[in-house]
Amino acid sequence: MGESLNGLKRTIMCGEIREKHIGDRVVVMGWVQRKRNLGGLVFIDLRDREGILQVVFGEEINKDAFNKADLAKSEYCIAVSGNLVKRESPNPNMPTGMVELKGEEIKILSESETPPIYIKENLDAAESIRLKYRYLDLRRPDMQRIFKIRHKTTKIIRDFMDGEDFLEMETPILTKSTPEGARDYLVPSRNYNGKFYALPQSPQLFKQLLMVSGYDKYFQIAKCFRDEDLRANRQPEFTQVDMEMSFVEENDVIELNERLIKRVFKEMADVEVKLPIERMTWKTAMEKYGSDKPDLRFGMEINDISEEVKASDFKVFKSALEDGGSVRAVKASNSADMPRKKIDKLGEFVKTYKAKGLAWIALKEDGIKSPIAKFLKEEELKAIIDKVQGKTGDLILIVADKNSVVFQALGALRLELAKELEILKDNKEFRFVWITEFPLLSYNEEEGRFQAEHHPFTMPMDEDIQYLESDPGRVRAKAYDIVLNGEELGGGSVRIHDTALQEKMFKVLGFTKESAWERFSFLLEAFKFGPPPHAGLAYGLDRLIMFLAGTENIKDVITFPKNQNAFCPLTEAPNVVDENQLCELGIRFENNKE
Amino acid sequence: MGESLNGLKRTIMCGEIREKHIGDRVVVMGWVQRKRNLGGLVFIDLRDREGILQVVFGEEINKDAFNKADLAKSEYCIAVSGNLVKRESPNPNMPTGMVELKGEEIKILSESETPPIYIKENLDAAESIRLKYRYLDLRRPDMQRIFKIRHKTTKIIRDFMDGEDFLEMETPILTKSTPEGARDYLVPSRNYNGKFYALPQSPQLFKQLLMVSGYDKYFQIAKCFRDEDLRANRQPEFTQVDMEMSFVEENDVIELNERLIKRVFKEMADVEVKLPIERMTWKTAMEKYGSDKPDLRFGMEINDISEEVKASDFKVFKSALEDGGSVRAVKASNSADMPRKKIDKLGEFVKTYKAKGLAWIALKEDGIKSPIAKFLKEEELKAIIDKVQGKTGDLILIVADKNSVVFQALGALRLELAKELEILKDNKEFRFVWITEFPLLSYNEEEGRFQAEHHPFTMPMDEDIQYLESDPGRVRAKAYDIVLNGEELGGGSVRIHDTALQEKMFKVLGFTKESAWERFSFLLEAFKFGPPPHAGLAYGLDRLIMFLAGTENIKDVITFPKNQNAFCPLTEAPNVVDENQLCELGIRFENNKE
Repeated sequence: MGESLNGLKRTIMCGEIREKHIGDRVVVMGWVQRKRNLGGLVFIDLRDREGILQVVFGEEINKDAFNKADLAKSEYCIAVSGNLVKRESPNPNMPTGMVELKGEEIKILSESETPPIYIKENLDAAESIRLKYRYLDLRRPDMQRIFKIRHKTTKIIRDFMDGEDFLEMETPILTKSTPEGARDYLVPSRNYNGKFYALPQSPQLFKQLLMVSGYDKYFQIAKCFRDEDLRANRQPEFTQVDMEMSFVEENDVIELNERLIKRVFKEMADVEVKLPIERMTWKTAMEKYGSDKPDLRFGMEINDISEEVKASDFKVFKSALEDGGSVRAVKASNSADMPRKKIDKLGEFVKTYKAKGLAWIALKEDGIKSPIAKFLKEEELKAIIDKVQGKTGDLILIVADKNSVVFQALGALRLELAKELEILKDNKEFRFVWITEFPLLSYNEEEGRFQAEHHPFTMPMDEDIQYLESDPGRVRAKAYDIVLNGEELGGGSVRIHDTALQEKMFKVLGFTKESAWERFSFLLEAFKFGPPPHAGLAYGLDRLIMFLAGTENIKDVITFPKNQNAFCPLTEAPNVVDENQLCELGIRFENNKE
Repeated sequence: MGESLNGLKRTIMCGEIREKHIGDRVVVMGWVQRKRNLGGLVFIDLRDREGILQVVFGEEINKDAFNKADLAKSEYCIAVSGNLVKRESPNPNMPTGMVELKGEEIKILSESETPPIYIKENLDAAESIRLKYRYLDLRRPDMQRIFKIRHKTTKIIRDFMDGEDFLEMETPILTKSTPEGARDYLVPSRNYNGKFYALPQSPQLFKQLLMVSGYDKYFQIAKCFRDEDLRANRQPEFTQVDMEMSFVEENDVIELNERLIKRVFKEMADVEVKLPIERMTWKTAMEKYGSDKPDLRFGMEINDISEEVKASDFKVFKSALEDGGSVRAVKASNSADMPRKKIDKLGEFVKTYKAKGLAWIALKEDGIKSPIAKFLKEEELKAIIDKVQGKTGDLILIVADKNSVVFQALGALRLELAKELEILKDNKEFRFVWITEFPLLSYNEEEGRFQAEHHPFTMPMDEDIQYLESDPGRVRAKAYDIVLNGEELGGGSVRIHDTALQEKMFKVLGFTKESAWERFSFLLEAFKFGPPPHAGLAYGLDRLIMFLAGTENIKDVITFPKNQNAFCPLTEAPNVVDENQLCELGIRFENNKE
């Protein structure tokens, strides 16, 4: 059974009704959140996108309506007409709590079976069932709040970019593999059997082409695709706020984006982001925080104690230093009494980052306790404590290894300690930092060659270009990431627009002229025709929305997400297709494959 | 060679410079449109996104700059600093024509080879070369104008929808086949070998789910995909302005969209669209214009002359009427003297629409001429002429056949005549019309069953529901198209939200309960939980932009389009992929396929 509207028009949303509307005759429509029959009165909490309104039906108000209302159950979709009156027992916890609607007419627009999940905030249901019944999960007010945030945020971004004379331009989804290096999703071609389109991992090449085309300022809120094994906060398709500008340098991109960030966080979170946002070189970030996305909401910085222990005979320190590594420490305040078991667990933790072990020094009330004390001279111990400004009650945690391991282990340990010590509990801060001067290249030990850290079109810093061939690992890039509370929100770079430099770069990356051409042909070809200096940046929109909505689950900010196996429990995609479709594509499947 | 900006900042765009800027010191950057060395002075027309500025270099202004400027060639990318002065020989045809820049410094940011196409308006180059060098084609000012229109139009649409409380929501690209009936693009799954995602033909099912989820008003500017054989104005991927509303009826959707249309055409074309827009039933459109997308910018309507010839012995008319068909005519004014050859050509033309032939009556100065006059009584001939209000100088063209053929043939003939007679030459009108009351179903003769004209979720008109099982062909739908100048700009419908009616609909379409469930499972499942009444509409954005930009080629409004074979000459997509990628997907190709 489903009644028609038959010309009945909604006059107001449930959630918009306030005391000032008392006396108004209204028509509202929505879903039955709850129905109670209390001695001759039927109360319905009626829910729409904007909120919940109490509706009361009684025999003395309208008997037919009363009887029909009593048929309604949870999640029935109904329309009600009547007068708004002052509520007899007001509920100050609800925005509409001063008012109730006396229901004179009701239409049952559609019925509902008992939903398999509760339509309420903070639902504690299994993800599989939430995704299978996503349309019910999306009815929950906290999910509706998130998608309002998402809509409003993209609107603000678009308004801002439009105001800055950027043109929003669409780039192709059916295209050729882009050189991001992750695995592409492929689309078999019917016209050219055996050939494939690739879904874009980003609009990188196209946005650079648009700069070559003179569009000057481009942006797009773009779908991107990566066929990677999914981790907690990854989805096969995700959304980027993507931009590119011509005739600019690093500072121009940063300055524009600071204004964008300020506006978004002001309007969406009522937070004043102070400009300019702090900048930190990659080197400093690694040395002080062991991470290129440092969380600056707390200190607990890493200290280099190599100098202090350089004369030590302690084998672990000695061999690390001899191998060109370092000895570094973080200090946890008021943690000297941490139980041995917990410290051992931290030791296991750093081993997952390839550290050989974790040394510690506890500055207890009753003196220093440390399993390594016996290996150190007293002045060495003192020097370490001085270097980290240790005082009674502190726990000093030390890793000695090659630098990359030390940074990674202590960077992770620092975050783990913050969690353990609840340092960030109730912290509402949004702490931004630009990380700059990234290494241009990193050495791939497996392949025995340098590879681009960002992508092969990233411009080296002017003063480092001289080392490009002689000492590639030393070259820093004109690349920048914007980091928020320890997460990368976005990143970008100045691009190479000089053909000679680009060719040198390819050479360093081990491309022959032919192989570079094969892979990037059309971009290289385009660069023959007066490419402008250009630079850009891209944000992960999903992550930005997660911050603004206060959720740590990317699935909460995507309407119809996939699960960890890139499967959609709602639509059951991917699925089998008709044999004749495969036939048209000329595709067969291996028999020996699952 | 490519110089760096090294801190040099652009101060203004070339195309923005006006007389009021004379005296300003500026830095401009752009491309060399033209360079001339006229006796000791180098003139460069410098082009950026906003327009062209004349720059002059001279030995007496700055000798180094003069020498360097003389090295510049077409499409070099340069930066110039200097003072703006009054131009000695003003060019009133250019917005910047009163001003010139005295170039004191020049940087050659990058050089250019001679471009394979001219960077100029109204280029007459082969499409293949335009698409291969798309980044140069996109440099042309008329293309840049189009993408500014595209950006601005989508901005206006988004502003409008936001103002009407619609939420822009993204729906998945990697999803399950949707029931539009065209061929899907497929994406093989790596996790589930042998299974596929499909790229969406439209967000139809998802937007209906979002209504079930209570989002109330949804819109999206969405990429859609169809793997169809391409016709002139089709692309494998295209963009829809897609919307859906809850708790509304047909008129609400139409009224909202009229205001949207009015706003877009006012702001983008400075045209006042008068509201309400005319509405015409499908039946009237077919009978008067032989088309469900009539071009109302001219008359030349179709007249039914069946009644006038019903007693005629003329075999062609007689057999058409006996078979349940009709005899209908269009009248071309001032065309009685059309040469016989041309008339014969029109006869051939209607045959391509399956008409058996074209009868004609020419009302010449010296009397009636008609090859069929001998078969008609004088009063019959007179009755025909009266019916079409023929007068001297007119040419009456007649088709007799079953109705569907008559409508199609005369509808096409009417447009052909308008072209032939140049009726629409210099017509700048934007003539909108809503077509309503479409047939819900059409009979598929091949498959011997009824099929949905719009899609299987379209609501029948209330008064016709009674015929759904007894006389399906008679049932009209709550569906509506918005037609502009004879082209469908968009269309939509009210959706069925009643499960019982939906099941009846599936039965009429020949689905068993199981097969309907198999195909639409999750939507049908969702409809168990209180679906609201809802209705929607989608526009083809590409076509809208074509109207606003005044181009008839869809490739002009898409940044990087495919050619007729769904191939991109620029990126060479689709292309072969690595064997190991196919291996991961478990895919092999048939040997006996090309």
